[in-house]
Amino acid sequence: MAQEFSEQHRVVYYDTEVTGEMGIGKLVDMMMLASEDHSDSVGVTTKKVLGLGLGWVITQHLLTINRLPKNNEVVTVKTKAASYNPYFCYRDFWVKAADGTTLAKMHTVFVLMDQEKRKITRIVPELVAPFESEFTKKIERNPLPKAPQTITARHDYGVRFMDIDSNHHVNNVHYFDWMLDVLGADFLIKHRLKEMNIQYKQEVRYGQVATSEVEISGLTTNHQIKVGSELSCLATCRWEER
Amino acid sequence: MAQEFSEQHRVVYYDTEVTGEMGIGKLVDMMMLASEDHSDSVGVTTKKVLGLGLGWVITQHLLTINRLPKNNEVVTVKTKAASYNPYFCYRDFWVKAADGTTLAKMHTVFVLMDQEKRKITRIVPELVAPFESEFTKKIERNPLPKAPQTITARHDYGVRFMDIDSNHHVNNVHYFDWMLDVLGADFLIKHRLKEMNIQYKQEVRYGQVATSEVEISGLTTNHQIKVGSELSCLATCRWEER
Repeated sequence: MAQEFSEQHRVVYYDTEVTGEMGIGKLVDMMMLASEDHSDSVGVTTKKVLGLGLGWVITQHLLTINRLPKNNEVVTVKTKAASYNPYFCYRDFWVKAADGTTLAKMHTVFVLMDQEKRKITRIVPELVAPFESEFTKKIERNPLPKAPQTITARHDYGVRFMDIDSNHHVNNVHYFDWMLDVLGADFLIKHRLKEMNIQYKQEVRYGQVATSEVEISGLTTNHQIKVGSELSCLATCRWEER
Repeated sequence: MAQEFSEQHRVVYYDTEVTGEMGIGKLVDMMMLASEDHSDSVGVTTKKVLGLGLGWVITQHLLTINRLPKNNEVVTVKTKAASYNPYFCYRDFWVKAADGTTLAKMHTVFVLMDQEKRKITRIVPELVAPFESEFTKKIERNPLPKAPQTITARHDYGVRFMDIDSNHHVNNVHYFDWMLDVLGADFLIKHRLKEMNIQYKQEVRYGQVATSEVEISGLTTNHQIKVGSELSCLATCRWEER
């Protein structure tokens, strides 16, 4: 059984949006932090991974939301590196309220990137053993997001200096802001996100312009981020009316 | 003597930038949180202020930085509502490292806004008494930022849904991102911010486009944010080479 890690997090005003609820990008930020803290706690630090010439890359998140955390709410983030096969690692996250109810869940797929070759490489056992992850030969067949067919709305977002993290990458969470902002305040205020399936294809870099396109089809929205003609990211969201 | 409030804050990866240091907007966010927590602790909650038909508005920050907090550093934020006169409240902030050295200081000027009339109103004693602020007739004459004379760089930033807080305002900290991003990665990586004097003139709203303009003059930069021809915000920064 994979080892579980958990930590508490206080949601503060700058994590929240006009709805008084935590933003989706911030929610994912908070889960990613738990993953990083888990890794540090077992000695699989970013420094160690980089020292092997490698880096973790997220290829997909499957997010389910029951209720978004509110301003000043203290939540517990639980995570485990559930399993791995020769090329993929699977990690699960749960965000729990003080009464133990599950506010959100996320299933995340990671691969290992050879930093020099810029290619995906086989999972290195010493990087997963400390998590007591289960080895499996099975490759998961997770549902994939659908590309928008007819574009309902489109907006360009320049990548800002503040969007790049200490690994010189645009932090994954900015994709959430680009994908959701394009829906507009009216949609975002009247709907609640229930599920989001996001797949990362190609990194966006500082100085580039990310074009966010969405197809709104009732309570489903299909999103893509492109840089020029190159596809960077896809997502499908399911919403409910507020 | 004004009452002091302090709280600890762990700086995490998503507070930091490519330099591995905390972003300026995030640094100010963290200080504003201490101000809010201080207010809540003495019962001067946002709800109470709103209940009187009022709202606090920041008109100026004078920020001095010795060293920016790093990823994973635990800092202490200290604050006190130092003094007030009939129209202005003055609050001081200090960010301290674990060894007690001061990393950053900020002096902030607040006014009270009548929400219905959208006009500045006299300071209500019951909203400052709990902080044991010193009453003074003296109105501070703080240095003001200089408007840029020759524009070195200019960039437009659309106000995003995620930029609006639960008071339906663009959170002040986004002005920092707009003002600093326009300097470009090359400048931001090669320089360290030492001082920033920022003055807020007019609120920017959701759906508007904020034009960020800067004049770079050696180690001094003069900034303005405009919406169309209307001036929203001015700042003067002093930098040192890294």
